[in-house]
Amino acid sequence: MGDCICAERMINSTSNPQIKNLIQLQTKAKARKEQGLFVAEGVRMYREAPRGRLVKTYVSESFYGKEQNQALFSGQDVEIVSDRAFAAACDTRTPQGVLCVIRQKAYELPELLQAKRPFLLLLEDLQDPGNLGTIFRTAEAAGVTGIVMSARTADIYNPKTVRATMGSVYRMPFCIVSDFAPVMAALREQHIRTYAAHLKGTREYTEADYRTGCAFLIGNEGAGLSGELAGMADTYIRISMSGQTESLNAAVAAAVLMFEARRQRMSENTGAAV
Amino acid sequence: MGDCICAERMINSTSNPQIKNLIQLQTKAKARKEQGLFVAEGVRMYREAPRGRLVKTYVSESFYGKEQNQALFSGQDVEIVSDRAFAAACDTRTPQGVLCVIRQKAYELPELLQAKRPFLLLLEDLQDPGNLGTIFRTAEAAGVTGIVMSARTADIYNPKTVRATMGSVYRMPFCIVSDFAPVMAALREQHIRTYAAHLKGTREYTEADYRTGCAFLIGNEGAGLSGELAGMADTYIRISMSGQTESLNAAVAAAVLMFEARRQRMSENTGAAV
Repeated sequence: MGDCICAERMINSTSNPQIKNLIQLQTKAKARKEQGLFVAEGVRMYREAPRGRLVKTYVSESFYGKEQNQALFSGQDVEIVSDRAFAAACDTRTPQGVLCVIRQKAYELPELLQAKRPFLLLLEDLQDPGNLGTIFRTAEAAGVTGIVMSARTADIYNPKTVRATMGSVYRMPFCIVSDFAPVMAALREQHIRTYAAHLKGTREYTEADYRTGCAFLIGNEGAGLSGELAGMADTYIRISMSGQTESLNAAVAAAVLMFEARRQRMSENTGAAV
Repeated sequence: MGDCICAERMINSTSNPQIKNLIQLQTKAKARKEQGLFVAEGVRMYREAPRGRLVKTYVSESFYGKEQNQALFSGQDVEIVSDRAFAAACDTRTPQGVLCVIRQKAYELPELLQAKRPFLLLLEDLQDPGNLGTIFRTAEAAGVTGIVMSARTADIYNPKTVRATMGSVYRMPFCIVSDFAPVMAALREQHIRTYAAHLKGTREYTEADYRTGCAFLIGNEGAGLSGELAGMADTYIRISMSGQTESLNAAVAAAVLMFEARRQRMSENTGAAV
């Protein structure tokens, strides 16, 4: 009887309205914004999804058909989808068989500043979805307390970005701003020091002290930080490099800075030498 | 008259044998290996190509048609290719208009150990072409003196990898080995300390001293280092993480380790505290 009910309920067609809407959510930032939703793929992203924001879960017929997989969904309402229709709704080429629709969460800047020793990232116009997701993942690991992004930064809810965050998109507080000037003013007011990562920086990044409230400003992959935003920073820092390399990948540069801050913050030595 | 000669010489067809071979070199690791060649795309990769290893340069008709571009090729023998045939030979979707064929360069392990204070990376079965290229780029910037890769690591000459290296593929000495045991023995003999980056490591990576000869062992994205290789390392290290992140992206983890080593090596403080 159970099997019959499942089969009757199963979504079979790629023109089913739910599948069509999943495709919209996967491919169109505008649809995601209007509906306040995004899609996360894979078992891990389903497992880590905050239950209060989990709107709907779709499972492929063949994934659900394996008995050992069903325990994953016990007590949860899931929608079974034929493999073909499921694949159409996926961004990945070899879907694992689980897709979930998640409610977006909006933070306000003041929430990001409430941490005891704020540790922030300010991202200006980052373009690569994979880089952006990797930065979120790295930031959570480094202990970053919040991320502020310019409105021209890649969409955090792009499926490739969501995947690259490895779940950090659920947990990292972030907000999107159209103008950094009020942000910079708020940081200054709260004595959060701002560091512009800049190829023209003269101060080596290892020589600054990040143990108090701090924020790193990371610029666009090609153009770096705008002069306008860099000009508002307290300190220009640079990562000196060997060889003939002219720059680091944006996610790598951000990682090097964040983990130097983490190193200093973890250090029990609270004296001058860090 | 000059224009006429160009037009006569121009490759027009995607079935031209040179274009067909470029496609082979772009898409087949086997073809690259048999011919000992690889393809690099873009103006930057052309500019930085070691002239002694530059076998042939192809330029798209429209790129060559712009007078300001021709200075790039002064004194060099280039082959003009119609835009359509050129696009067929490219891996990138929006080709810049320059493609070059480069001779591969083979290094032997002893060459990698000749540096005064060797600083090595050992990569075991890394799978993502972009990660591998980013690691080469980061390694050059961090001052790494050589990279040893397992035979099952992604192909360094994959077009996506070559692109991600941003030219480091030309300059970073590397070799590919089928067995790490003799490598580890050679490192031990030369007092180069080996550090296995491992989620099970107990020693924080910031607590080790990398100022003498050192080598980091980096494992596969999904599986991490094999027990066999990790077991041969002098020291297990770990990068402790905040939040719920379980791991870092492989290129990010490698960057964090390499730049900590660089920080220590650059430090003028040669005492115990680093």
